[in-house]
Amino acid sequence: TTLTVALLIVSTTASRDPTTDASGQLLRDLLLAASTTPALTWEVTETLIVPDDTQAIQDAVVRWADVEKVNLVVTTGGTGFAISDGTPEAVRPLLGKEAPGLVHAMLSTSLKITPYAMMARPVAGVRAHTLIVTLPGSPKGAKENLSCLLPLLPHACIQCSGLTSSRALHSG
Amino acid sequence: TTLTVALLIVSTTASRDPTTDASGQLLRDLLLAASTTPALTWEVTETLIVPDDTQAIQDAVVRWADVEKVNLVVTTGGTGFAISDGTPEAVRPLLGKEAPGLVHAMLSTSLKITPYAMMARPVAGVRAHTLIVTLPGSPKGAKENLSCLLPLLPHACIQCSGLTSSRALHSG
Amino acid sequence: TTLTVALLIVSTTASRDPTTDASGQLLRDLLLAASTTPALTWEVTETLIVPDDTQAIQDAVVRWADVEKVNLVVTTGGTGFAISDGTPEAVRPLLGKEAPGLVHAMLSTSLKITPYAMMARPVAGVRAHTLIVTLPGSPKGAKENLSCLLPLLPHACIQCSGLTSSRALHSG
Ligand code: NA
Repeated sequence: TTLTVALLIVSTTASRDPTTDASGQLLRDLLLAASTTPALTWEVTETLIVPDDTQAIQDAVVRWADVEKVNLVVTTGGTGFAISDGTPEAVRPLLGKEAPGLVHAMLSTSLKITPYAMMARPVAGVRAHTLIVTLPGSPKGAKENLSCLLPLLPHACIQCSGLTSSRALHSG
Repeated sequence: TTLTVALLIVSTTASRDPTTDASGQLLRDLLLAASTTPALTWEVTETLIVPDDTQAIQDAVVRWADVEKVNLVVTTGGTGFAISDGTPEAVRPLLGKEAPGLVHAMLSTSLKITPYAMMARPVAGVRAHTLIVTLPGSPKGAKENLSCLLPLLPHACIQCSGLTSSRALHSG
Repeated sequence: TTLTVALLIVSTTASRDPTTDASGQLLRDLLLAASTTPALTWEVTETLIVPDDTQAIQDAVVRWADVEKVNLVVTTGGTGFAISDGTPEAVRPLLGKEAPGLVHAMLSTSLKITPYAMMARPVAGVRAHTLIVTLPGSPKGAKENLSCLLPLLPHACIQCSGLTSSRALHSG
């Protein structure tokens, strides 16, 4: 089974200077490391850096879910308390289903590591056949959150996709 | 005190063949087992099987809360990630109050048992004088979730009902 | 850094007889005790008692956030399951950002202490530059919840405020 992933880095700084982004490569590495068997491969088909801008975030997520129909959209950044942090507010109205169990797992894993996790504001859910999760912008936080979800993501993505055979999924 | 419960089994399969439903009897047994003293009795006054259909779910919940005024509505099924899984989306707009503490307890109890609990999408809250909780469809998951709530449900239902004397509640 | 706090006691009983309020002084004491260094001082600039009334709650929160621009609004009361308990429903629509990490921390801390915490219905988030959290009405619950948030609140408030220098914050 190959599951496709689109990766959205939300950062005004990185949108001006991509070399400042530390999370993109780290998340790609993490997905690659989770592709340990031929039975399951994560393929990052898209990576995009956008500024902290609602419209730019929504355009990317909608295109990936509705047109390119990727299995998973992962965003990183824009989940804090600053005025510019609007990723959860951009993503939530796009979801047909919210996934509080994924949010709970992310928060409870992070809170075991640091009380600063209280300041995370993750959103997770499904749009059409695509699972969407918003990770924090810090490489450390993004990695912790994705790691805690990774064992379940194949199952969740396959359920979202509406397909049960790996052949059908691969060709979808 | 007698608290009335209506039980909604959300399953397209079971709506065609009720013998395939494994959760209904299990949840009734669990409520019966919790009725250990004359001081507290759960009485399942309604059991209904509906397909995975928003309107059918909402019709049952609204009638039970607004017309029959049961103390507790328990649904099982339709809380996953598949396209047909729409119980939380059907129930949430019917709630006057959400109950994140009940959701938190369900998720954190289930996550201690299995990481698959990440995929649960429970909703809980109050409509008028009726408490409503959505359990997963798997008998195991439904049982775990209801068990974790059961010690608090009498207190929650009595608070919702607006009645404090057991006599008044019984006759309400 | 001085961070300003407005304290809203939501209680129909206490609005008629302020001597029945036990949470106000307790929360002020807790904030005072957390002001242990010149580097951080919580200053309670407003305390108000309102009945369980949506409009009264919203008027206070909007004025404090939009006009007086306090750093933190703390409410206590009106978060239960009774018909009159409407603080979360009054506050949620005023938020520009929800803060599920703060909610998670409050619930998970309280659930370690008592299963009655399942019945809490906390809301937390940001309106403009002001952080808002709703605590339960019981002095014990209010204290536990605020205590668990306190170590992170300065960081969260400073991020909300859009200011990074303590001088700027102090004069804002
Ligand atoms: Na939670």
